[in-house]
Amino acid sequence: MKSEFDLIEKIKKKIPRSLQGSIGIGDDAGGFGDLLLASDTIADGVDFLNKKIRPELAGRKALAVNLSDIAAMGGKPTAFVINLGIPEDFSEKWIFKFYEGMMALAKKYKVSCLGGDISSAEQFFASVAILGQKGKRNILRSGAKSGDWIGVTGKLGGSILGHHADFEPRVREGYFLASAGVSSMLDISDGFLQDLGHILEASGKGAVLALESIPISNAAWRLSGKNCRKALEHALSDGEDFELLFTASDRVQKTLSQSWKVKFPRHPLYWVGKINDLQNKVSWTFGGKSVAAPKLTKKGYCHF
Amino acid sequence: MKSEFDLIEKIKKKIPRSLQGSIGIGDDAGGFGDLLLASDTIADGVDFLNKKIRPELAGRKALAVNLSDIAAMGGKPTAFVINLGIPEDFSEKWIFKFYEGMMALAKKYKVSCLGGDISSAEQFFASVAILGQKGKRNILRSGAKSGDWIGVTGKLGGSILGHHADFEPRVREGYFLASAGVSSMLDISDGFLQDLGHILEASGKGAVLALESIPISNAAWRLSGKNCRKALEHALSDGEDFELLFTASDRVQKTLSQSWKVKFPRHPLYWVGKINDLQNKVSWTFGGKSVAAPKLTKKGYCHF
Repeated sequence: MKSEFDLIEKIKKKIPRSLQGSIGIGDDAGGFGDLLLASDTIADGVDFLNKKIRPELAGRKALAVNLSDIAAMGGKPTAFVINLGIPEDFSEKWIFKFYEGMMALAKKYKVSCLGGDISSAEQFFASVAILGQKGKRNILRSGAKSGDWIGVTGKLGGSILGHHADFEPRVREGYFLASAGVSSMLDISDGFLQDLGHILEASGKGAVLALESIPISNAAWRLSGKNCRKALEHALSDGEDFELLFTASDRVQKTLSQSWKVKFPRHPLYWVGKINDLQNKVSWTFGGKSVAAPKLTKKGYCHF
Repeated sequence: MKSEFDLIEKIKKKIPRSLQGSIGIGDDAGGFGDLLLASDTIADGVDFLNKKIRPELAGRKALAVNLSDIAAMGGKPTAFVINLGIPEDFSEKWIFKFYEGMMALAKKYKVSCLGGDISSAEQFFASVAILGQKGKRNILRSGAKSGDWIGVTGKLGGSILGHHADFEPRVREGYFLASAGVSSMLDISDGFLQDLGHILEASGKGAVLALESIPISNAAWRLSGKNCRKALEHALSDGEDFELLFTASDRVQKTLSQSWKVKFPRHPLYWVGKINDLQNKVSWTFGGKSVAAPKLTKKGYCHF
């Protein structure tokens, strides 16, 4: 089987646009009138789940990745349903703790659990579908304009050390960014560069990035033994950061530079580059001068 | 692990009622304001899927079981998302045909496909979540009253011969029954007797059934070599009939006896018994006289 993205592109062509709702397929959530509907599955193995992480964290993650999808559209999550596939050797206790972790996060963000379904499976999976209320506007991947700033809501890389499961979904942040008028947005699940590619592809644009402004997480530093090039590589390619990646006009960027600090004093925004007209091309600067792209051994995290 | 139903009851207790939406967990769909949200997974093996049935039918079934959930609440399905787990040995062609079958049914009922997610899996699964618009009222499992008639929208049993995948979800019928004012409703997925048990349990009622009025499908007859007792057993216990099972007051039953024929001339309603106050007890008559319950070797189909 080819990549997940290839397959989705081909499938999309089989679905008439008139039956794709108000937003169309390919963004973090679909739209139907004023509603957003998204869904995401985490599965044993694929999402590093299995019994290596505590069931509470697995349950938390199953919901968090879906909250993140609604956040990435600038919406407000309201309610969800969950389907579990449970192998024979999973205990009731494990399942209860999974629910506890999930419901603790549900309470925090005041989202309702409307039910779901349980079936037996060879491999554990949790498939959540989440309903959201549209924000002031739906923020799509396709809205980036030439001259827009590229911003990200937190440091990147090394999620495998724990952040992939205990991350805070950027629900309030996404709603705030949408209200401020950002032009495009998504959550980083496949890796910064790969997800930036999704924005560029959907918007028909290119980007120039400032090497020194890529925010590298402590986990990425730890993973790379403080090797600068390796740490950068983790920040650019690692999947499951679940920070929001967005673009903003000069005017919106100026407003956010002030208002963000007041609203979210504990985690700064990072501005990493700008959008240009060179379709699907990413170029780099260092200290304001053009440099070659950093060499990466992998392109990003692929779920497939 | 104990049965699916035990586990769901226990999980339900872990979720505060204030976070269970407007309907609460345990019906065919959850409610949030005027919206219904339901989800159901079909998995290779468990739902007789695998490669024994054509991919078009598998795709059709993935959506049909969800349409049936919204129908069972008396709602109108509007849009869905789908998460697929795909094993390595499944071809792109199989997946495309799966989508074709699904989208043909989506077009028929004018429901939109808003997107979803694809991941690799050891076992094929398709997890659909469906959004619906509430009908005039939500019809719950808990609304059966003493003296109500028990009705069913079609003949029962033998779904394994094909009906489990090619059944017509009773979307228009469910909406019509809800508008007519039925008191409780669900779709038969676990088997007639087991699903009637869900209504009795939720309503705190009992039932008396007329042996001669149970509608036995041709497939059930075929499966049983025309053995009467075996055919009845299939009708009472086989899973995945996906007919609607409902209760209706005398007044509503009288109205339906006339209006149904006009609206759905091609498939009659069957009236199989009445609700009484003997909690969770099912008793039987034949020709108006009390008889012993038919002996069944299995209680119903269990997905777990």
